[in-house]
Amino acid sequence: MDQRRGLLIILSSPSGAGKSTLASRLRAWDTSIRFSVSATTRAPRPGEEHGREYYFHSREEFESMVARGDMLEHAEVFGNFYGSPKGPVAAAIDAGQDVLFDIDWQGGQQVRNSSLGKHVLSIFILPPSIAELERRLRSRGQDSDDVIDARMTKSRDEISHWPEYDFVLVNDNLDDTFARLQTIVSAERLRLSQQPALVDTVRNLNKEFEERT
Amino acid sequence: MDQRRGLLIILSSPSGAGKSTLASRLRAWDTSIRFSVSATTRAPRPGEEHGREYYFHSREEFESMVARGDMLEHAEVFGNFYGSPKGPVAAAIDAGQDVLFDIDWQGGQQVRNSSLGKHVLSIFILPPSIAELERRLRSRGQDSDDVIDARMTKSRDEISHWPEYDFVLVNDNLDDTFARLQTIVSAERLRLSQQPALVDTVRNLNKEFEERT
Repeated sequence: MDQRRGLLIILSSPSGAGKSTLASRLRAWDTSIRFSVSATTRAPRPGEEHGREYYFHSREEFESMVARGDMLEHAEVFGNFYGSPKGPVAAAIDAGQDVLFDIDWQGGQQVRNSSLGKHVLSIFILPPSIAELERRLRSRGQDSDDVIDARMTKSRDEISHWPEYDFVLVNDNLDDTFARLQTIVSAERLRLSQQPALVDTVRNLNKEFEERT
Repeated sequence: MDQRRGLLIILSSPSGAGKSTLASRLRAWDTSIRFSVSATTRAPRPGEEHGREYYFHSREEFESMVARGDMLEHAEVFGNFYGSPKGPVAAAIDAGQDVLFDIDWQGGQQVRNSSLGKHVLSIFILPPSIAELERRLRSRGQDSDDVIDARMTKSRDEISHWPEYDFVLVNDNLDDTFARLQTIVSAERLRLSQQPALVDTVRNLNKEFEERT
């Protein structure tokens, strides 16, 4: 009973709301937090490494992983499959480590409904404004207007799922938002279900009561 | 929808575990937190004031309040009735203020099962040891050995209800325990159900999407 089970910390947001930066800061703040590296069928971009940004798989490989039940969640986005391999997550939380997921609402729903769903802490990040969201997307300089438009449509869909999350943070200031994220994660770790050692603590108190009388 | 509803923050612990000190610090930290002053049928002690430490009532008055449904919870302890009047609590949380309850496990159960139960945040404080608990009780110098023994028996009963709480804190160091208490209250205020203004935030984001297309 002594071993705490880790949390599945799900961060979702429309693209450009600051989710990746917040995820990086969270991992820098507590290096025990594992990151759930997604599997994908899309081609690697320059500089991306198998097992670091993504696990890159063929469509056939991906589909057989899904068929074997090896994916905690998966979805098709813009013609490519994305998913979270289950094995590393289960191993990490059994070892008492929290695992961070950077996934969208579809993934969030599937993880919540999975066998590990009761260990989920889900947080949605909103942009302060849509103008700001678009500005951030454009400032990356990666995408054409058509791709930007498609991302904005997807963003609107993503935002519509905010009520499904435990917490929603409006990212108007990165430092403030990160402080709130730290508070949430710290508090959740104090929750009764995250403190299996309390059973021993109370057992020892009861022993003291016995010895007193 | 804009008005946040307050939380009912329940602090329970055996007598001498530091609950009252933590409650005072919490109110000093955030003066918007209201304290639920209990009603009681016990006689006032020197220095106690009606409406400050307790509302002092005759047994007849108390029983008629219970009969009218004016008590959120009540119980008999050592021959006296104690209870939490419902009216001031309902008014405070409707006005968006958190209300702090210093009550035992029986009161906690009743408040959780009351009409306001869904707004409850419950925290149990454990002493680091029973020896320390007894030391603190004796150092008050108020009570005879018999009363101390009765309190210790009640403490054991109180401690047995720790699994009913959202959070359990072992008060081995007052500053650390208070910091954890602050973290818990701060995080709970960020929870979705405590952020009704998000509905307007998202409505405004959707307006921006409309205007864009």
